[in-house]
Amino acid sequence: MQNSDLIQQVNFIKEIDKLKYIQRRTKLFNSDRHENDAEHSWHLAMMTIVLAGHANKPVDVLKVLKMVLIHDIVEIDAGDTFIYDTTKSHDNTAEELLAAERIFGLLPAQQAEEFIGIWKEFEEGVSEEAKFARSMDRFEPLLQNASNNGGTWQEFDVPYEKVHAKKKVIANGSTALWSYADNLLNESVEKGILKKSDGASASQ
Amino acid sequence: MQNSDLIQQVNFIKEIDKLKYIQRRTKLFNSDRHENDAEHSWHLAMMTIVLAGHANKPVDVLKVLKMVLIHDIVEIDAGDTFIYDTTKSHDNTAEELLAAERIFGLLPAQQAEEFIGIWKEFEEGVSEEAKFARSMDRFEPLLQNASNNGGTWQEFDVPYEKVHAKKKVIANGSTALWSYADNLLNESVEKGILKKSDGASASQ
Repeated sequence: MQNSDLIQQVNFIKEIDKLKYIQRRTKLFNSDRHENDAEHSWHLAMMTIVLAGHANKPVDVLKVLKMVLIHDIVEIDAGDTFIYDTTKSHDNTAEELLAAERIFGLLPAQQAEEFIGIWKEFEEGVSEEAKFARSMDRFEPLLQNASNNGGTWQEFDVPYEKVHAKKKVIANGSTALWSYADNLLNESVEKGILKKSDGASASQ
Repeated sequence: MQNSDLIQQVNFIKEIDKLKYIQRRTKLFNSDRHENDAEHSWHLAMMTIVLAGHANKPVDVLKVLKMVLIHDIVEIDAGDTFIYDTTKSHDNTAEELLAAERIFGLLPAQQAEEFIGIWKEFEEGVSEEAKFARSMDRFEPLLQNASNNGGTWQEFDVPYEKVHAKKKVIANGSTALWSYADNLLNESVEKGILKKSDGASASQ
């Protein structure tokens, strides 16, 4: 690599420090402190190396790691979009694409192209690696909310049915993880920290 | 994998959330806010995928990523040790080994063994992957301090010679990165944000 590459790469490394300031709605485990995107991305990377053996089909773990490490970097420009937001869709907004082009565009051309490609592959969710990476992204906040007396489900009155619909894509990456997650959702309903939309409890 | 494995793995995933509370001495880029170990580990992982092409010898990037993602997890029990601390050595303390055995020991046996092995390999710093991972670990705070008017070098009166001695191991992983880092140290002396121990400026 050229020295000019290194200067561009260091500029990128400095720029992405801003991810540490992007607050998520969800909070740390058993905590009142909001998680930021950098912490979240590290946790997904750890989950990937721990849980990859549960993927439905063998995945390229290095590719999944790249996906989860970079998947939220666009939020430096575009901001965090809450998964249960009814006015703004999370997926593939024009704003996020511009952000990807600006931020990954700080890198040398070949690397910029690779990172934008990996980010798009994650967003599309079609490849086995993208499916598993997206499972990680849905599984972590579920574990957090369950540990925080319902967390954002309670705070924003999100009913079981809506949570279930968003979370069942975990099965696309891993039916084993979805089985665990589905049980945890049912347990959360039984505990009263996740409400069915008709107000019925799990036992009704 | 067995379902019992998954229960152990989820317990581990919850436990390592505590890394987000371990504060480092260094601060974010151009900032007064301390960095925590989870953010730091994410940043090293990003640096690894961006900078691996500068390694002295080809490295197994997946192995390096595992190293930088887990290298500080022992600090959940053992706490952060400041690199310029004169009373306590960072490397391979008995306390850190106990921490590794307890925390990685939450995982299924085979994974626990793998993670402890990777952590030890990083600490020993002998393999090409460990050398490069350790370069990342030394390079990030150098960039931060240079962006923060000297950061911990100023705050704790650490002279150029001591910084240089600690940072030159970057060359073991990448002479290209060390060349960049060495220049940055010299520039920092010229700017007066890093002092030589005899009080001489770079121009003297």
